[in-house]
Amino acid sequence: MRTASSFAGLLTGEQKIIDSIKSWVGGNFIGDDCAVLASQTLVSTDALVEGVHFRRDLMTLEEIGWKAVAVNLSDIAAMAGRPRYLFVTVCAPPGFSQSDFRSLYSGIGECARQYRVSIAGGDITASEQLMLSLTVIGDVHENGCLTRAGAKPGDVVIATGDFGASRAGLWQLLSGESSGKRSKEDDAAHALRKHICPVPRLSEAWTLVGKTGSAGALMDASDGLADALVQIARTSSVGLMMELGSIPIHEQTKKIAAQAGADPVEWALYGGEDYELVGCIDANVWGEWRKEGARGNPFVPIGIVTDGSSIDLTRHGSAAPPLDMSKCFQHL
Amino acid sequence: MRTASSFAGLLTGEQKIIDSIKSWVGGNFIGDDCAVLASQTLVSTDALVEGVHFRRDLMTLEEIGWKAVAVNLSDIAAMAGRPRYLFVTVCAPPGFSQSDFRSLYSGIGECARQYRVSIAGGDITASEQLMLSLTVIGDVHENGCLTRAGAKPGDVVIATGDFGASRAGLWQLLSGESSGKRSKEDDAAHALRKHICPVPRLSEAWTLVGKTGSAGALMDASDGLADALVQIARTSSVGLMMELGSIPIHEQTKKIAAQAGADPVEWALYGGEDYELVGCIDANVWGEWRKEGARGNPFVPIGIVTDGSSIDLTRHGSAAPPLDMSKCFQHL
Repeated sequence: MRTASSFAGLLTGEQKIIDSIKSWVGGNFIGDDCAVLASQTLVSTDALVEGVHFRRDLMTLEEIGWKAVAVNLSDIAAMAGRPRYLFVTVCAPPGFSQSDFRSLYSGIGECARQYRVSIAGGDITASEQLMLSLTVIGDVHENGCLTRAGAKPGDVVIATGDFGASRAGLWQLLSGESSGKRSKEDDAAHALRKHICPVPRLSEAWTLVGKTGSAGALMDASDGLADALVQIARTSSVGLMMELGSIPIHEQTKKIAAQAGADPVEWALYGGEDYELVGCIDANVWGEWRKEGARGNPFVPIGIVTDGSSIDLTRHGSAAPPLDMSKCFQHL
Repeated sequence: MRTASSFAGLLTGEQKIIDSIKSWVGGNFIGDDCAVLASQTLVSTDALVEGVHFRRDLMTLEEIGWKAVAVNLSDIAAMAGRPRYLFVTVCAPPGFSQSDFRSLYSGIGECARQYRVSIAGGDITASEQLMLSLTVIGDVHENGCLTRAGAKPGDVVIATGDFGASRAGLWQLLSGESSGKRSKEDDAAHALRKHICPVPRLSEAWTLVGKTGSAGALMDASDGLADALVQIARTSSVGLMMELGSIPIHEQTKKIAAQAGADPVEWALYGGEDYELVGCIDANVWGEWRKEGARGNPFVPIGIVTDGSSIDLTRHGSAAPPLDMSKCFQHL
């Protein structure tokens, strides 16, 4: 029988420490996007640290607040849940003013309102570094709960949106190529918007769970598409066969990657922060869904689930080099 | 009608920012030790920052982990709830090793096991400063939920344990007077134990709610007895008359205060981190409970609730100076 250790070579340092923590504290909940409590309550917690997750010279405090909420809601979307309550802890560095608090909470409040989540508590304290720690509480969707562990051989691997754009937006910010594009709602700002103002794929997840119930797998690609594939494969004890050519990549991402001298497929796999959904769905269910037409279907197919114990990649039909997790962004 | 603004002069800077945040985000849950969700779920979140809440040269990582859990559980005790799940976020500074993680989680796990709480998730990330952010989830007690808002004129103000000891223990640590006392289980280590290894007053809170149901008020004195009194008075829109001479202060606390040239009553009022419970209970219910004898009753009376709009203090019967909240420890 295959075990999670088949993928040991594909674990990041961060993942290894999480595995150790699980063994020390015996947490049998840890390991998915959210914990599923006995009451069918979903809980997820995410920290954002200045200099690690964001820079105040690249994003406004409103944007940082908005993003902090959005990435937490994305964890609820990753299990097809409905977010209800948010708890916000802010560690504020010296000189963080009342007006700074107001800007930060304005972004937090705006995103919470947009997705109808109540801010129900939190904590504030001093620190050397701006740090936000958010906990989101939601309900399991009435049609079921999708975890990383539900992929079955023969399933189709599907994904929402496009990948690599957040990395492209970050490149624009870092290289100073973003000036003037920020306020535009046009397509030229796609990458920036994906980086600064990610959209939690809640309605897409609810559509999926409406089709599959609790069958299938789901997670969000917050740490990159490669990480999402590894997590689903190891947790479900399956293999994957992925066609890199079918990963959706926005035209603007390709243009920015060319400008940066980077491979857009590498940005898609390892760039992270796209907050798109990656799912595995029964091939027949997927076939029926496709017959309804692409209109209103937020997912595209990007691979298949195998009974193997590896993740095999092709690029336009030819074998491609294996995943290299050292290219992932590490938060630790 | 009296409003919370009667106590505006007694609010700390921290409290004023929390009030602003409430007005910005419209959180109608914020303001008690825990949020009480529609599902009768209690949620509380607390952050501990190195240099603000703890110092690694004064406490071991095991002790820091233990205390981080205990102070979060104390918030559940403050509403007489039953803690169930814990979410632990650790922001680790450069050089924080695998072995450091293990020590920290060993303390976290030990306290969680002692109070039968499951560690159900969390996050780890890099930072410049060691920071722990914990969220605890619990259930409302089957006999009811006690908030800060339930005090009525005529109630008796009661408290568990003793006050000022944590401040005394901190003084011992800071002055280097703690050497050799740490491992002793004898009474000489009372203050150190109260500072390093506080006990969440869960069973005491359950006993109280068994006597009162949802009638009465309760909170924990994490930011000092003075802060607890102000919070109960303003949230319940009542006045208080407190006899400082009846605040329980351990003999060892008095001895250490004398050594430090401090007033033990000031340590009790403003020192903070005692994590004792402060409650308000109907005078008749209290009278009946007292008749059963002091044995098994973890509370002592320290004042009465009035229909006034101020907190009046006496010390051995004579009027004492009013509360001075500038003496509280501020986390911001």
